[in-house]
Amino acid sequence: MDYIKIPMDIEKKSFEIIGSEMGESSFSKEELLIVKRVIHTTADFEYKDLIYIREGSIEKAKELLKKGITIYTDTNMALSGINKKALEQLGCKVICYVNKEETFKLAKEKGITRSMAAVETALDEGVEFFVFGNAPTALFKLKELTESGIGKAAFIIGAPVGFVGASESKEEIEKMDLPMITIRGRKGGSGVAASIVNALLYMITER
Amino acid sequence: MDYIKIPMDIEKKSFEIIGSEMGESSFSKEELLIVKRVIHTTADFEYKDLIYIREGSIEKAKELLKKGITIYTDTNMALSGINKKALEQLGCKVICYVNKEETFKLAKEKGITRSMAAVETALDEGVEFFVFGNAPTALFKLKELTESGIGKAAFIIGAPVGFVGASESKEEIEKMDLPMITIRGRKGGSGVAASIVNALLYMITER
Repeated sequence: MDYIKIPMDIEKKSFEIIGSEMGESSFSKEELLIVKRVIHTTADFEYKDLIYIREGSIEKAKELLKKGITIYTDTNMALSGINKKALEQLGCKVICYVNKEETFKLAKEKGITRSMAAVETALDEGVEFFVFGNAPTALFKLKELTESGIGKAAFIIGAPVGFVGASESKEEIEKMDLPMITIRGRKGGSGVAASIVNALLYMITER
Repeated sequence: MDYIKIPMDIEKKSFEIIGSEMGESSFSKEELLIVKRVIHTTADFEYKDLIYIREGSIEKAKELLKKGITIYTDTNMALSGINKKALEQLGCKVICYVNKEETFKLAKEKGITRSMAAVETALDEGVEFFVFGNAPTALFKLKELTESGIGKAAFIIGAPVGFVGASESKEEIEKMDLPMITIRGRKGGSGVAASIVNALLYMITER
């Protein structure tokens, strides 16, 4: 069997196909890097109409990443999907507290989801860069706490997927006056969220 | 803000919505558990037309899982997405060799992708249950090696996503006379692959 075996060649060719099938769009060059990477991850062109990239958000995300910050993810899947080499190159790290002992405890104590408890812990610790691919409840919690003056979220990727609360959580988060990238509607997911982070990382590391 | 905070309630409600929006279908009860879980993971109803569940495959997968086998995944994302409690309950484990030292070495030596090298290692070790959410090359490799009489793959989830080789890899794998579940066409992904594994696990653990 004859097939391309070099991962970077496969990716380059994939991006060419995505570009040619997408046709014209009003995305900036950097926005397009994000949109194409999401489509690359899902093979779903609908994402080009669902993605919302707030003005100035890419710049803000890059500024944070260049400082070597800690990235919060709501799932281990999103954490796994983020390119560790690129993170390392920038001195960034990624955390997911959802399976930590303390999170189980806090969630049980307060009668909230583990995702919500994990957000509380991260804000307490001063995390600024939040990535959500799964848990609508965590997004609601982030909004509640931020509006109460707790923590200092500076950039949000809001991409929970699902049928109960996902769309609503993203609508709520968009009401916040913060740099953000969201996936509107029901679609999204951990893979989508991770791919947005990777697109931002690669803008700086230029692998 | 008023929102459902109990994860199992959210999931139950989500499955009800999916069921009512899907309408009638010719899936069996167990097949439907898989289809709905994939849609739950992606919010993409197209999967009901893309999924291929070969006759007898659910039974075979359950039989393997009940034995407490080792599951191979092609990515750490797929590995992360598989429910560890359910695995533990059945005495199963999950491995992903893609970032192992030996895999880098073998891939470099042979000029193949790490995913391909990882498949070689797994077959050598006697793994029977294969889950692919990302790498078409790994699926091609599995077919090559199995046809050469190497290893004893007994069940395959073939769900690589992408624009270069993904569809083709799934077409090739379907030519094999083995129990399998695949996602036809370009769509799929690590999350989709993991959700199929989880649906199978939950049929046995009945959480």
